[in-house]
Amino acid sequence: MATRLNERVVYINGEIMPESRGTVSFRDRSFKFGDGAFDTTRTFGHRIFKAREHIDRFYRSLRYLDMDAGVGPVELLRITEDVLARNLPLLGPDEDYWVTQRVSRGSEIPGGDVYQATGPTLIVECTPLPFKARAAYFRDGIDVMIPSIRRAAPDSMTPRAKTHNYLNLILADQEVRRQNPKAWAILLDHNGNLSEGIGSNIFVIENGVVYTPQDLYVLCGISRETVLEEAAKIGVTVVRKDIDLYDAYNADEAFITSTSFCICPVRGFNGKKVREAGIPGPVTRRLIDSYVSLVNYDFVGQYLKHLD
Amino acid sequence: MATRLNERVVYINGEIMPESRGTVSFRDRSFKFGDGAFDTTRTFGHRIFKAREHIDRFYRSLRYLDMDAGVGPVELLRITEDVLARNLPLLGPDEDYWVTQRVSRGSEIPGGDVYQATGPTLIVECTPLPFKARAAYFRDGIDVMIPSIRRAAPDSMTPRAKTHNYLNLILADQEVRRQNPKAWAILLDHNGNLSEGIGSNIFVIENGVVYTPQDLYVLCGISRETVLEEAAKIGVTVVRKDIDLYDAYNADEAFITSTSFCICPVRGFNGKKVREAGIPGPVTRRLIDSYVSLVNYDFVGQYLKHLD
Amino acid sequence: MATRLNERVVYINGEIMPESRGTVSFRDRSFKFGDGAFDTTRTFGHRIFKAREHIDRFYRSLRYLDMDAGVGPVELLRITEDVLARNLPLLGPDEDYWVTQRVSRGSEIPGGDVYQATGPTLIVECTPLPFKARAAYFRDGIDVMIPSIRRAAPDSMTPRAKTHNYLNLILADQEVRRQNPKAWAILLDHNGNLSEGIGSNIFVIENGVVYTPQDLYVLCGISRETVLEEAAKIGVTVVRKDIDLYDAYNADEAFITSTSFCICPVRGFNGKKVREAGIPGPVTRRLIDSYVSLVNYDFVGQYLKHLD
Amino acid sequence: MATRLNERVVYINGEIMPESRGTVSFRDRSFKFGDGAFDTTRTFGHRIFKAREHIDRFYRSLRYLDMDAGVGPVELLRITEDVLARNLPLLGPDEDYWVTQRVSRGSEIPGGDVYQATGPTLIVECTPLPFKARAAYFRDGIDVMIPSIRRAAPDSMTPRAKTHNYLNLILADQEVRRQNPKAWAILLDHNGNLSEGIGSNIFVIENGVVYTPQDLYVLCGISRETVLEEAAKIGVTVVRKDIDLYDAYNADEAFITSTSFCICPVRGFNGKKVREAGIPGPVTRRLIDSYVSLVNYDFVGQYLKHLD
Amino acid sequence: MATRLNERVVYINGEIMPESRGTVSFRDRSFKFGDGAFDTTRTFGHRIFKAREHIDRFYRSLRYLDMDAGVGPVELLRITEDVLARNLPLLGPDEDYWVTQRVSRGSEIPGGDVYQATGPTLIVECTPLPFKARAAYFRDGIDVMIPSIRRAAPDSMTPRAKTHNYLNLILADQEVRRQNPKAWAILLDHNGNLSEGIGSNIFVIENGVVYTPQDLYVLCGISRETVLEEAAKIGVTVVRKDIDLYDAYNADEAFITSTSFCICPVRGFNGKKVREAGIPGPVTRRLIDSYVSLVNYDFVGQYLKHLD
Amino acid sequence: MATRLNERVVYINGEIMPESRGTVSFRDRSFKFGDGAFDTTRTFGHRIFKAREHIDRFYRSLRYLDMDAGVGPVELLRITEDVLARNLPLLGPDEDYWVTQRVSRGSEIPGGDVYQATGPTLIVECTPLPFKARAAYFRDGIDVMIPSIRRAAPDSMTPRAKTHNYLNLILADQEVRRQNPKAWAILLDHNGNLSEGIGSNIFVIENGVVYTPQDLYVLCGISRETVLEEAAKIGVTVVRKDIDLYDAYNADEAFITSTSFCICPVRGFNGKKVREAGIPGPVTRRLIDSYVSLVNYDFVGQYLKHLD
Repeated sequence: MATRLNERVVYINGEIMPESRGTVSFRDRSFKFGDGAFDTTRTFGHRIFKAREHIDRFYRSLRYLDMDAGVGPVELLRITEDVLARNLPLLGPDEDYWVTQRVSRGSEIPGGDVYQATGPTLIVECTPLPFKARAAYFRDGIDVMIPSIRRAAPDSMTPRAKTHNYLNLILADQEVRRQNPKAWAILLDHNGNLSEGIGSNIFVIENGVVYTPQDLYVLCGISRETVLEEAAKIGVTVVRKDIDLYDAYNADEAFITSTSFCICPVRGFNGKKVREAGIPGPVTRRLIDSYVSLVNYDFVGQYLKHLD
Repeated sequence: MATRLNERVVYINGEIMPESRGTVSFRDRSFKFGDGAFDTTRTFGHRIFKAREHIDRFYRSLRYLDMDAGVGPVELLRITEDVLARNLPLLGPDEDYWVTQRVSRGSEIPGGDVYQATGPTLIVECTPLPFKARAAYFRDGIDVMIPSIRRAAPDSMTPRAKTHNYLNLILADQEVRRQNPKAWAILLDHNGNLSEGIGSNIFVIENGVVYTPQDLYVLCGISRETVLEEAAKIGVTVVRKDIDLYDAYNADEAFITSTSFCICPVRGFNGKKVREAGIPGPVTRRLIDSYVSLVNYDFVGQYLKHLD
Repeated sequence: MATRLNERVVYINGEIMPESRGTVSFRDRSFKFGDGAFDTTRTFGHRIFKAREHIDRFYRSLRYLDMDAGVGPVELLRITEDVLARNLPLLGPDEDYWVTQRVSRGSEIPGGDVYQATGPTLIVECTPLPFKARAAYFRDGIDVMIPSIRRAAPDSMTPRAKTHNYLNLILADQEVRRQNPKAWAILLDHNGNLSEGIGSNIFVIENGVVYTPQDLYVLCGISRETVLEEAAKIGVTVVRKDIDLYDAYNADEAFITSTSFCICPVRGFNGKKVREAGIPGPVTRRLIDSYVSLVNYDFVGQYLKHLD
Repeated sequence: MATRLNERVVYINGEIMPESRGTVSFRDRSFKFGDGAFDTTRTFGHRIFKAREHIDRFYRSLRYLDMDAGVGPVELLRITEDVLARNLPLLGPDEDYWVTQRVSRGSEIPGGDVYQATGPTLIVECTPLPFKARAAYFRDGIDVMIPSIRRAAPDSMTPRAKTHNYLNLILADQEVRRQNPKAWAILLDHNGNLSEGIGSNIFVIENGVVYTPQDLYVLCGISRETVLEEAAKIGVTVVRKDIDLYDAYNADEAFITSTSFCICPVRGFNGKKVREAGIPGPVTRRLIDSYVSLVNYDFVGQYLKHLD
Repeated sequence: MATRLNERVVYINGEIMPESRGTVSFRDRSFKFGDGAFDTTRTFGHRIFKAREHIDRFYRSLRYLDMDAGVGPVELLRITEDVLARNLPLLGPDEDYWVTQRVSRGSEIPGGDVYQATGPTLIVECTPLPFKARAAYFRDGIDVMIPSIRRAAPDSMTPRAKTHNYLNLILADQEVRRQNPKAWAILLDHNGNLSEGIGSNIFVIENGVVYTPQDLYVLCGISRETVLEEAAKIGVTVVRKDIDLYDAYNADEAFITSTSFCICPVRGFNGKKVREAGIPGPVTRRLIDSYVSLVNYDFVGQYLKHLD
Repeated sequence: MATRLNERVVYINGEIMPESRGTVSFRDRSFKFGDGAFDTTRTFGHRIFKAREHIDRFYRSLRYLDMDAGVGPVELLRITEDVLARNLPLLGPDEDYWVTQRVSRGSEIPGGDVYQATGPTLIVECTPLPFKARAAYFRDGIDVMIPSIRRAAPDSMTPRAKTHNYLNLILADQEVRRQNPKAWAILLDHNGNLSEGIGSNIFVIENGVVYTPQDLYVLCGISRETVLEEAAKIGVTVVRKDIDLYDAYNADEAFITSTSFCICPVRGFNGKKVREAGIPGPVTRRLIDSYVSLVNYDFVGQYLKHLD
């Protein structure tokens, strides 16, 4: 099988290969059961961001799942940097990557029982960030919709581990996108408070104070952590607390964080606009500015460049 | 790549190939997100059982997930029978297959957003049943343990769709098997009643009446349905109701059903034996006998032959 | 103040007056607190339907609220028939009325405390049914949407009493109508199962069996009761049980009942169409036909006549 | 219709009229559905208190309900001051007013559907405070009773919006007052912690620290806010947290705040007296004194003057 | 130590002794932890009732608790009859006994850990029924009150085992009796439906149908079972279902069953009387008559004889 | 009855007697219903620790239960010191006592109803600490297991009162010890977060910060309070928060506190070891050292001396 010209490479179980050859068995437990975990950071201007923090969180997910990566965090960081270095030449100047580690528990052992597995499938890969598909969010703000489906309760599956079981979040997305293809679902937790969306955290702002759901009910995003740190730097108070629809409907501003978005303003909840007309609002803008300074890259401008 | 001698084949997206060539991209959404569904029946003496009922349930799972298989149920049945026919010659006389359909939403579209996918990956495959690994359960009864982790609530993800998101069930298995490697986890639902185990339903018997959890909280197994039908035939009452630990600890008998087990007796719950000393107890034996008649195959004897 | 020509009349506390003079004090507790209850039936071809059953339910609501109507059910029926008789001449031939009783706990006693009230405000009134606004539902089916807001739990306020506290239902309606102005909200109960919509009950049909939520979680509509009776007459099984989104998404047909709708077909849930393409589907049609026979009036034709 | 001598006036939709002419249609949605909201402050020695804060909260309630007042907060404050000024001459020297804004979504549009309304009914009114009915509470302390009925959960209806749907609170009052006509109901929230009573917040004191339920589960009273501010001024720690019956039964002191009460001492919970025998206890007294200083009016003395 | 004249005897661990010598160590785990179980029947006209059914239930409680009685059911019945026979001569003609078995896990082993115990303390005893204290309930009906405290959820402790842990029920009794010393507490379960009172089950009647809470949430009383059997005999329908306050407030009649009461009419719930004025109402009377026939003893007359 | 040589004494209702004569009636409500409360401290090198704090908590438990000890705290302390002084001579040099107060509501009044009791049974006693049975925990760390049974919810019974109703905790212990006789059960609360074990609190440590469950869901142990105080002294941050399995499985260290253990290291949760291999880990060791300084006694060495 010939390698395609300018094709990205992927690391799978010790081997680096063109992505088109990057396959796993249909018997891999992550294909059959979603029995895997991942973590993902991004580059800013082709420089990787907080790779170590992401890898640390990755190993916490693995401990929760009782899953072995086969390599330690130092080696995984080295592999990550290697895969990124090989793929960077394929990036255009305004493009950047998601840089992702994945581990699956492996395939079932023939003749063995459900519980037994051959051992891990470890993958490191780069994916171009979807600037074009998401640029309008930065211009218009995100329309957040709250689906009827609830985020799984932590006593059945913690949201704090970043696993390959995403159907709960995918069903939420489908529910809202059938009404509005550009809507972004933020699910309520099992108590009825805002929790999170697919790969993303929510923040609301009222009277200059920023609020975000408690750690117990969300994947504690590295971007979320970064916002908490930047807010502290610039004197903005952030409070983790239970947030309900009353808070959402009375928000002055709101924004979503994720590895790809960093910070992206929200236009409204369930079709009600936030009070501040500007996108972004003033507090969100200060946090974006601080974030841009930290990463030394204008990620908002990067998105807006990809507008049609 | 050469096909191994006597190697089973698998159907993937229109092509039948040796299993060793049966792969999917690491970008397939079922690998990354468990964004897929499956269903599985078994053969008895190499004859497939209730393939149509399984395929019907498969399409109900797909409707819940808003997922398209790319083919309809008639065509899927035809493919299934074809794959099975090609693989049957590889079976020994005392062996049988799981026969399984799987669909994934496909890979992400490059440059597209999280929600978009290329379209389905459809797989049909055969897997030898794990007679050796499970034979002792038929001799000794299964030690059921109730883990602390709860089955996800139906308002976050129905247990009635058979999806590729199995981590909730896998975590439960891991929790109990760290204490006892042969234990079988039956999870409590979010209300604290018995629900189900990985790919398996639970029944308890007291005073000649058989009880099983309500449909809302479990994957309504075809084997479970078969037991309900056979019980009606032989005049055994089965009641679907909320079952708690008081019921489990006071059970005269108990058993688990699954596609592979059909009916397998339970020895006890959380280390307390059921009241009836015999494995299986008298009511369970009557149901097994009726099941054996229906499928015209002594599946218990088949398991016991594989004892060391 | 002159009575307008051809103006409907209303009964308020012993007096019959033109509607334009039908007012209550801004201090009435039902205005200030929604501290009231009501019930409402309709006419078919100008004949009142099951007035007694509605009045019986009205007094059950009042007992729950510990509220006194000031008159007994016999007298209230007499007043109802009187008000209707006076208003019937104003109806066009294809029109019909809602006929409604209302009671409020009255005004606060000056100088008294929160708990004390002057005694009841009793109202009986007629309202033309909104045929034009709802005719398209009978042609196209209703688009049911499940809002994120949950129906209040029975231990805080039973849904079985028909009270003047409708904000929970109104908020649900607003949430879905901001996405789709013709959508009809069916709320989940506090356990995450389908409950009811504003003044309306939901039914889903699978494999010829009709399912509707349990009595505990809904206003047990007289139209719902009528469907249960008619189904028994024509040999259709109806089961009251917990219904979740898996049931809704796999429904062959579905319909809504209410005093005004009687039976109105549902097109789909959350943007997914039911399996049966016809509006109404075959089982729904049989129930409609039976209902039409019972009331001796083609209410579907009546709605469709008002289509533009 | 003649205006009664010395009759108070009320503002309704742009017109100021004697209260006896202050009526709304029986078709007003706030009469029929409680589809309205309100807010209310009081005067101290005929001077209005924190009118702006109340009006701000009023508009937050309206945003949650998606309801339009028809006027903005500045205009509403002007109307409020106007209505109060006209009614002040009717007050005796030891009397004061509740000053209240109300908005209803208006009447239904004839021929329209359930969701449509004519637009707001806006009311501003004054009500003499019930000093006589409540004076004994200040002498004896309030007997708090916990009813079995629970406060509606925030995911069905936030308690933070001050709406015209009060039945949940009214049912609680009725339940306890059938046992003891002077009892005051404080409901448990859906988790079983103390939440609030009708128009009132609860505080308990142990070892000099004051506790009150979290914001999410209560109407965040302006009087409650005032206590939080005054406590900070005089060095008393107040903690918002979940409070259960163990806290209530072990309280040294307790008190209730509301617009009318400001601060009123509690004698005990469910018939068990608080530990401190004095009414009020020492910490409560300090908070009362600070509150009296702030409003520059001895509201406790005012109540006690009205004792028989 | 001399035996008092005419003193009842008690069986403790193989010895029959006067009650005044019937003691257990202060180190007995049932004294320290309530770590025991019991069951209790009564005599009618000095004849024991359904002793076997009670003893069967006793052993089911013990299995749930993993507790060993030291003797089997046949021997325990023999002991019970022996203790009763010795105590019968002390009964007056209008008196009867509770006849009770108790088992404790025994004392802690010195030097052992929390989990270890010496082995069972087994007690069989007779207690005169409290006819005088309860006679007025049969004349006036029982005033049922619903406390705010909830019945413990089955996933923490099943109510179906009759254990020595009664504080949940005792706290409920205290809460309501501080308001009304003759009130009888019926607790809500964790879902907010009626469950049970201390040693007692609740039934409500509407339109001739009798309703009682589901088995999962109550101690399934032998008297309750007897009512279910007698109702079947006389053609009265009894339905086990979730019952909430709406049902209670709309009941035509209601009654409580317990070993001592058999069937005792309820006057009302939370101070609202049931609809039927007569005590007992007509359906309750038919059930009482049937019960009296079964036990061949007028237990109502027996109670009423003890009225002052 | 002769006193055994060197026998410990116990105080019961005003009398001090040898333990072998320390009995209560089988009719005592604490034997029958667990209707009692207790508190317990320990000695360090024969010196009593924080007796006053324990007695204060004891009276808070009694207030919750509405139970009267018959004596006040000052007198109870005097009795406690007296009983201890009499028993100290029986202690070996490496031994110490639990020193315990207990109160029961007393026996039922003959002829009275369920609610009435004769008045308290008050007991003060000393029990040698189980050093031998628990010494290995200090060498190896405790294996914590999470049972499926949940801690009773505070709205049915607060865990903050230390009562004689321990079956919920005992059932949890039994469930885990049937798998591993040395395991220690820590129950999840009704929300699915870690709460407490029998007489013991749990702490987990991550990145140098110590976490322990919120006060509402646990018996707020005096040893737990002591750890909070010592941590503050040595600059270790302790946060009370909801802790779930993700926290437990990712803990660097963990420990249990109780009166007997003071601080005892945890080896792992559900068979997964904590990250720090050392027993105890570094933060736990600092807290132990500080605790040892405070009590001026090497309680760890004391346990380890009792290893076989």
